Amino acid sequence: MDGTMSGEPSHGIVSGRGIGDAGGAVNETRIRVRYAETDQMGVVYHSNHFIWFEVGRVELLRQLGFSYKEMETNDDCFIAVVDARCRYKAPVHYDDEVLVRTFLKHVREKVIHFGYELRSAEGGRLLAEGETTHIVADARMKPRKLPEKYMKVFRGAVGK
Amino acid sequence: MDGTMSGEPSHGIVSGRGIGDAGGAVNETRIRVRYAETDQMGVVYHSNHFIWFEVGRVELLRQLGFSYKEMETNDDCFIAVVDARCRYKAPVHYDDEVLVRTFLKHVREKVIHFGYELRSAEGGRLLAEGETTHIVADARMKPRKLPEKYMKVFRGAVGK
Amino acid sequence: MDGTMSGEPSHGIVSGRGIGDAGGAVNETRIRVRYAETDQMGVVYHSNHFIWFEVGRVELLRQLGFSYKEMETNDDCFIAVVDARCRYKAPVHYDDEVLVRTFLKHVREKVIHFGYELRSAEGGRLLAEGETTHIVADARMKPRKLPEKYMKVFRGAVGK
Amino acid sequence: MDGTMSGEPSHGIVSGRGIGDAGGAVNETRIRVRYAETDQMGVVYHSNHFIWFEVGRVELLRQLGFSYKEMETNDDCFIAVVDARCRYKAPVHYDDEVLVRTFLKHVREKVIHFGYELRSAEGGRLLAEGETTHIVADARMKPRKLPEKYMKVFRGAVGK
Repeated sequence: MDGTMSGEPSHGIVSGRGIGDAGGAVNETRIRVRYAETDQMGVVYHSNHFIWFEVGRVELLRQLGFSYKEMETNDDCFIAVVDARCRYKAPVHYDDEVLVRTFLKHVREKVIHFGYELRSAEGGRLLAEGETTHIVADARMKPRKLPEKYMKVFRGAVGK
Repeated sequence: MDGTMSGEPSHGIVSGRGIGDAGGAVNETRIRVRYAETDQMGVVYHSNHFIWFEVGRVELLRQLGFSYKEMETNDDCFIAVVDARCRYKAPVHYDDEVLVRTFLKHVREKVIHFGYELRSAEGGRLLAEGETTHIVADARMKPRKLPEKYMKVFRGAVGK
Repeated sequence: MDGTMSGEPSHGIVSGRGIGDAGGAVNETRIRVRYAETDQMGVVYHSNHFIWFEVGRVELLRQLGFSYKEMETNDDCFIAVVDARCRYKAPVHYDDEVLVRTFLKHVREKVIHFGYELRSAEGGRLLAEGETTHIVADARMKPRKLPEKYMKVFRGAVGK
Repeated sequence: MDGTMSGEPSHGIVSGRGIGDAGGAVNETRIRVRYAETDQMGVVYHSNHFIWFEVGRVELLRQLGFSYKEMETNDDCFIAVVDARCRYKAPVHYDDEVLVRTFLKHVREKVIHFGYELRSAEGGRLLAEGETTHIVADARMKPRKLPEKYMKVFRGAVGK
């Protein structure tokens, strides 16, 4: 595997396996735990899980055909976090490969709700699960509607 | 003491004001937002709130007479996060002073539940609120009971 | 001292003590090491020193009467890093108080050169020393001259 | 490209191209810039480059047949940073792919010197270059010699 991409998603539309059930799109992205992400307890510091959720979110968008960068730049569409939660199931260690599984839970014109699972890439052990809720805003942080081109695809990607 | 302390709490036992009501201990610590904590949206990136919660947690312990460092080193007592949540109420900006208000919500022998409010130091506007749940563990991450010297004080510090 | 400021400088113009000699302005800011800043080696991860340098830089500007926030917002003046170096002399541990000593090494119209010392707040042991070089740029990252109101003060603050 | 690895190196021994000349081993690892790594200037905050250097370092070791994790765990061998420097040549933006090129500059029994280039994965533009110097230490941060099995390989990997 030559020159593979850090942060590159698996691009597989995967259903079932406990999340994103009944046909919803699920993005699977692998990340390698960095030394900087550990703390003196010898495990990953807990705020990093939220950064990995964001990596998963961006890759799910890419899988659906969108670039979050262009959403901001071209469509003045920002996805601002209003609620974030993580339940930690098992410690994550340095140099581990972590599978970030991201899916859409609900989509409305002004609110998007993502779900996440972190699993050990080797063995599939559940490491954490979480959710984030986002409002759609413009560059001045004023709420706005999600443009229809996104809504259409997002609605189709939500698990039923 | 010239050269005031970054991360130094106000050491005030404050009750009411919406949290930690009815006599519980509340720690108030001020932090100054660092440039590194902002993102390209021009506001603080949302995972940093959890780092500030941890700063508040440590300072609440210090206010109660304990050093978290010594809890780990001397008493083999680690406070591992099992659940963390934040609700974001208003964007936080570079160089803002943020008041981190931390209090104990529940304490049992093996589980500790903290609550938090982030407020603008100037004006008191609510910026975020959150909770974290922790289990008590030893250095090998094996669950254990909180030693009685902590339990005694923690029970007294919980808001009724 | 009630409600002290995290990241608040000591506001003392201090000369000598090895740096900023011969009358230059030196800012001394104390920071408390956060758990998130440690790694599994049990010490502060080395990239955090550069974040502390930035805290010191901002507080030195404040001591000189300027807000870096306003430099950006009001004067379209950004201080972009072009070179950064740190020499690590001793490990820094969780919950330690670190004294960040920041001073101006050279100032030209388009280039600013800062120097730093990190010392243990208790005992004064040298923990690290470093330098950063910055170019003055506008919001589009185009090089520009530092406005005269800053130049005048900065020139006076450089150690001879 | 199914299930590719974030932080996975290209595993290519590459010579020339300005660094690692004359036959030294060069690791090329791609990383995708995370939102969390940007700041309000709209570019990557400068301390993150040092985290990417560390990613490159670990992947160069892996390319040479070693796991840094096992160096720590099995051989009580820590590579502690004593000097780190980065020269920033061009701003790095959110969602960019960055090629981290890492090579060994010098190796002695107790000191290892790495060099780095960050290049735009698309187009190859030089974004930054840097060096880090490390001493070999045991878990208590006491200097020690690098075990011969590493020395042998490292000596062969240094560019002449």
